[in-house]
This record gives sequence, structure tokens and C-alpha cells, in this order.
Amino acid sequence: MTTRGPIGIGLLGLGVVGTGVAEALLSKRNELAKRSGAPLFLRRALVRDPNKSRALGASVTPVTDPTRVIEAPDVDIVVEVMGGEQPACAYLERALKAGKHVVTANKEVMAKHGPRLLSLAQEHRAHLRFEASVGGGIPVIGPLQRDLLANDITSIRAIINGTTNYILTEMSQKGLDFSVALAQAQQLGYAEPDPTNDVEGIDAAFKLAVLATLAFHTRVTAADVPHEGITRMRAKDFLYARELGYAIKLLALATRDGNGLTVRVHPVLLPLETLLAKVDGAFNAIEIKGDLTGTVTFHGLGAGPRPTSSAILGDVVNIARAMCDGQSAPLSSPAADGPEEQGLRLRHMAELQTQYYLRLNVADRPGVLAQIATVLGQHEISIAAVVQKDADAQARTAELVITTHPANEARMHHALDAITRLPVMTAVNNLIRVETV
Amino acid sequence: MTTRGPIGIGLLGLGVVGTGVAEALLSKRNELAKRSGAPLFLRRALVRDPNKSRALGASVTPVTDPTRVIEAPDVDIVVEVMGGEQPACAYLERALKAGKHVVTANKEVMAKHGPRLLSLAQEHRAHLRFEASVGGGIPVIGPLQRDLLANDITSIRAIINGTTNYILTEMSQKGLDFSVALAQAQQLGYAEPDPTNDVEGIDAAFKLAVLATLAFHTRVTAADVPHEGITRMRAKDFLYARELGYAIKLLALATRDGNGLTVRVHPVLLPLETLLAKVDGAFNAIEIKGDLTGTVTFHGLGAGPRPTSSAILGDVVNIARAMCDGQSAPLSSPAADGPEEQGLRLRHMAELQTQYYLRLNVADRPGVLAQIATVLGQHEISIAAVVQKDADAQARTAELVITTHPANEARMHHALDAITRLPVMTAVNNLIRVETV
Repeated sequence: MTTRGPIGIGLLGLGVVGTGVAEALLSKRNELAKRSGAPLFLRRALVRDPNKSRALGASVTPVTDPTRVIEAPDVDIVVEVMGGEQPACAYLERALKAGKHVVTANKEVMAKHGPRLLSLAQEHRAHLRFEASVGGGIPVIGPLQRDLLANDITSIRAIINGTTNYILTEMSQKGLDFSVALAQAQQLGYAEPDPTNDVEGIDAAFKLAVLATLAFHTRVTAADVPHEGITRMRAKDFLYARELGYAIKLLALATRDGNGLTVRVHPVLLPLETLLAKVDGAFNAIEIKGDLTGTVTFHGLGAGPRPTSSAILGDVVNIARAMCDGQSAPLSSPAADGPEEQGLRLRHMAELQTQYYLRLNVADRPGVLAQIATVLGQHEISIAAVVQKDADAQARTAELVITTHPANEARMHHALDAITRLPVMTAVNNLIRVETV
Repeated sequence: MTTRGPIGIGLLGLGVVGTGVAEALLSKRNELAKRSGAPLFLRRALVRDPNKSRALGASVTPVTDPTRVIEAPDVDIVVEVMGGEQPACAYLERALKAGKHVVTANKEVMAKHGPRLLSLAQEHRAHLRFEASVGGGIPVIGPLQRDLLANDITSIRAIINGTTNYILTEMSQKGLDFSVALAQAQQLGYAEPDPTNDVEGIDAAFKLAVLATLAFHTRVTAADVPHEGITRMRAKDFLYARELGYAIKLLALATRDGNGLTVRVHPVLLPLETLLAKVDGAFNAIEIKGDLTGTVTFHGLGAGPRPTSSAILGDVVNIARAMCDGQSAPLSSPAADGPEEQGLRLRHMAELQTQYYLRLNVADRPGVLAQIATVLGQHEISIAAVVQKDADAQARTAELVITTHPANEARMHHALDAITRLPVMTAVNNLIRVETV
């Protein structure tokens, strides 16, 4: 192995993840030096408040001027763990322009500006790695960029938000409604005080944009991914779903058909026997289907300072190795030249063909199901199963759960409008898509 | 991307996997050229019998002289899919010495000669990749060599032989005995006419040696891996196991404790609720535990021409990319310099601490269990659960199933010797280790 002097690391951010990275850099310095080919020195860390007491004490130099990290001559690799779009994105641009290699855990920046940053990296012959941006400690970016590269990927189905998977698991196992499960998750620190990004599917949409861009060699940005969250889920939905043989999961889905690509994030009914249906709690799982490899699934912890540090430091060690071997970044990076290769057309959700689960509150009298079935039939939607329960004698209403055969999304919404106008309807309580394969 | 002329591929072997690789190289030539940065041309394929009719017809030139592949000036990358130790290993050495890059699916060669071949590759600045040697189309070698490199791996638990997993699944689901399930698997082409390598755990031991060498940065060869097969499994064992809450799987296990490393392949009782217990049929799964990342699991098809081609062509495309970028192989390859880094001490099986399942045929009379429990107690083995069934009134025998708390392997074998000598014992029908975590 080529020997060279120490490699300088600069940290942007010293929160939970940043502290985890700094701790691992310090405690594992011998192993990391051997595997990198040179010692890795943490030069300094950008922080917001230099007076805040820090677990790492004197072993990390905190600075408040970003230039002292992103343009410092003794920093070779900039590690960004601030999160959020700005100023993180601007800092990464400046770092790349200054010729620094960059490792980022930032899914929002990669989902919104990934292709541009990768071009910038290529231009400055810098490495830009982002394994930690999706799936925490689960290797999935690397396998897509390298090991699975001979495949034409036909689909991705992923549980890539641990917060919502934790909430859904609690709702399912303990019969809680969404608001109760969310409050619990917040108390335990699994959900943020403002949970919007997680529970509305925005975080999962960012991650799906990153994965789909790599997998389908097509530029997919955050704005391209329609997303629905889990706020409408109720304890009842889990009971009905289980009775019908399904679990409920928030899935990030990308499906190719011909030259079309459908990307979406929303709750899904999944057959109980599928591998993804069994992924519980804070775990993540990414299922990738390729024309050669078939279906491969990656499962593990999708968040937390240690799993995220595993991904970040894996990227750091690999960049350090390349530096020790005197390799500048490859002119051709799968991430950088991939997006334009296939250029699939992004389909609208209205074109989607899928199955549906409908939970309706209806008047409890004869002929109601016939009226609803008629409206569905007029929109070319046929019923797969019906469950009727929970008759409320006082209100004279009943709850009706219907699952359908595959139908068109636009037609389903038109049918739902028509159903809502039926005099026998009290309320459309929920509409959830069903994945049967 | 740097442009350059076509990259020549030479195939060693044109059996089921070789034909799959050739087919994919031809049918996917446009995508592979774009992702590689240059066209990939299949120059010729080494075959045993040039007269045998081949599915690919005139599109592949068959040759019988290995030199025309491994030393041909127009071959840049040699792909070896012959299998077996020799002559494959000798050909790979010649290819590396001739400066060719090598991609191999050969677990036996990598398990027996991997470190030496990797040094040879390093010396000749050639790439040597072997993703296809373990787990078929599941990326696992790449993730261990790169993405998980910042971790200290503490354990690997893997289902990495599809044939035995298929047989065990059939035995479990259909109540078949081993010989019947094997005969069926052979008829369906899932097992070879000579099934020894699969059913005796030899194939899994090869693969574990490859994985453990990378994961633990310690030289582990095929001879270091104690292995037991599945031939002693009976339909009854699956019934008792399920009653006790377990599935039976052939696991490849590598566990680190301090500076010690225990590697082994044998059947195992696994709690039904674990992810690995749910891996059925021809699927493979590799569970890797790291100090940072926690437990990550890779699941998919571990064999077959298409999954294997995915891994092989993934390696080919990545080598081609590096060639297009003018990168010779890195001087430091994680695989090449890794083995010496940690140098863990390989522990003997006799040192193992684990739990056991014992199925005994005993005289059906009072006091028998007490005698057996006494012997176990004398060897410091305590009983966790007992199931007694299947009294045979005519023979006046009964079947006794005992599970133990964690005990030492050597002591268990001494205890078993002593139990066998008890006058009340008819037969020790099976001894299976139990993994509870």
C-alpha cells in the first residue's frame, strides 16, 4: 500500500449523528487507519453554538465559520451531517469547488440537487459519496451503483422511514390510533417535535428520489415523487387489513414499465406473508427487482448515530483508500453519468393501475352495497372482497370495507366522488392502495 | 467519460452459468456498453467438447485451448465459470500473470487459494473480483469489501446453500425424510447426481471461508471450517422443532469473541420468528452484525444462471469502468491486504458454547429421564425443555427430545458418550445445535 500523510476530515454538524461519527473516528482510529492506508484526523467540526457542552470535550475543535471546514487546506474530506436543504447544499458546493471530497448523509440535498452536485464533483475530480442518505447502516447506494449495475431494475419497494414504520407497528400491535402512537413516538424520541417530514412521507420521497435516480438511470427529483403520509390510518384499518390477510406499511415504490416509470410514497396493504410485511419497528428494508438478479432485499437499521456512522465512515474509508492509491475520482461515476442514460418518462399517478381498500361509513339498510357496487362498476372497478361490521344501531350506520381488483387510479377517484354523493353514504373513512405481489 | 476501444471478454466454461453470462453479454450489449464506457465483446469461450450443440450458435466462438482465452491479446477480462479447484485455479493464475483482469464465480478456488490469487493480482496490477462466488445475485462481497468497511464485524449467520435450504424446506413443509426430499430435488435438477458438496455442507463451508476472510480481516481457508451436513435430519426433527418454536436450517456461522473466531457449518434450530427462519426454498440470506451498523441482512436468489450473471457482469462492468478511467487496479485492495490485518485466532469446535437439541430413543419405563438428566448434570449441562412422545408399546421404547441451556461442545460430546452407554438407551437419533438469538 502506498504510504502518505494523514488524511484530514472536517465535519459539518455536531448533533447526534455528527457526534457519533466523531466518536467512531476517535475510538476506531487504529482500524480505520489500517483499512484506509493512512491515519484519518478529525480536524474540526462546524457547530451552531460553540458554548454548548459537548460529549467529546477537547478531542474535537468546534468552529462556527464554515470556511474553516470546507476550504481549510488541512481538510481533505468534508463530512456533512447538518441535514436540511440550506445552508448544507451551499456548503457542499463550496467544498467541491475547493477540491474537497464530500461524504453526505443529506437525503434532501441529494434528492433536490444530487445530479448537479455529482456533475460538480466530476468537474473538480472530487468524490461525492452518499451511502448514509438512504437506509442508514444498510448498504444500498453502493450495491446499486456497482454490484447490481448489469441489471435493468424493474422495481423498488422500500420501507425507508423508520419513524413511520415504528408508529405503524405500534398501531398494528397495540391497536392504537395514529395520534396516540405519534405522541408516544415523540415522547420516546423516535419522532421529531414537528413530525411533518416523516409522517407525511416527505422524508421517504427524498430517499426514493435518490434510489430511483440510481436504479433507473433517470433523473428523479424530490418534486417528482407524489407522497401521502400515514395520518389517516386508524386502529380499525389494521384490524380489517389483518382479517383480509394484510399488513399496513408506508412504502416507497418505483416501478418501470417499458419506457415509463412510476414513483410514489403512500401507505399500502401488503400480504402478511411477504418479507416486507414482516419488517417491524424502526427497521428498514429495500427490495430491488432486477432482470438478472431477481428480487434482492436489504434489511437493517435505517437510522441512529451508529448505523449512520457505519455508512458515512464506509464512504470515508473508501475515499481515503482511493487517495492513498493516487486515484483521483473516476471521470465516469455511475451516479454522475447514470441519470441521463435511460431517461424514462415519469408517469402521473392518474395512470396508476393498482388494487384498493376502501373503508366507508354507510347507512345501515338494505341495498346500500348494491348502490356502491353499481357506481364502482360504472367506473370499471370490480370488487374483490367485502367486509361489513360495526353496525351502529343508534346512528343506524354500518362500516363497509371493500377491496377491489386492479383498477385505474383516476377512475377510482372519479368513482369515489360519485360514491360520496350517494345519499346512503355517511363518510369515506379511508382509501389505501393494495400491493398483492 | 474517457472513450476507448472495445473491451474483450474471454469465458472459461460454457455450461449453464457460462451460457447465461454469454446470453446477457449479447442481449444487453447496449446498456452494458453505456454503463461500462466501452463495448464489451465476448471473444471466445473455453469448452470441453466443441461439437456439443450450443444454444448460442454462431454468436460465441468455442475453443478447447485455454491459452486462446487466458493469454489472448484481445482478451482483457477473463471470466471463470468452470467450477472445481483444478484446472480452474491454474488457469486463473496464468491469466493474472498474463496481466488479465479476472472475474470468478468459483467459491472453491477462492476458499482454498483466494489470498494467494489476490496477492498475485495485486502484483500484476490486475483486478480480481468474485462477487458471484457467494450468494449468487445477492450483493455481499462488495458490501463487505467497501460499504461495511468501517465496522468491526462480530458475527455472520448465513443460509448460503440453496440446494439444502430447498431440501430442508420440503422436509419441513411436506413432512418428508431426507432421502425422499433429496431424490425429489435431484429429479427437479435442484440437486446434483452426486450431492455430496451440498448436503455435507462443503459448498457452504467454501462460501463461509470467503466471507469470513473479508469480514474478519483474517485468513480463513476451506480447511478451517468444520462442517456437518443435513443427512441425519428426519421428518420427526422438524415436528419436534416446530413444537418447541424452532425451524431447522443449515447455517454457516462465524462469530468473533475478543481475539477468537469460531467458524462452522451445521444444521441449527432457529426460533421461528427470526428473519433467517423464514428464508425458504432456494433463497439465500446473509446476516452480518457490525459494531456500528447493527444487524444487516441480505436476501435473494443464491444460484441460477441469471442471478449469477448479475454478480459476474456487475464485476465485469466495474472493471471495465476502471479501465476506461485509466485506473489500474488499486495497489491496496481490501481483499488483498485485509486478511492479515486482524489475524484472529481460529477456535476449535470443542471450545464452542451453544445450546443443543437431542432426540433419543430410550426404554419406556420410569426413571429413564432421571438417569439421562444425571449424566448431563455431571457434565455441567442443564436441561431447558423435555418432550416425550411416540411410545412404541411393542418395542417398549419411547422417543425423548431434550433441549439444553448453553453448554460446552466438548462436554456435550463426553456426556453423549456416557448417555449412549446407559442400559436404558436404545439410540441417539440426532443432536442439533440451537441458536437462540
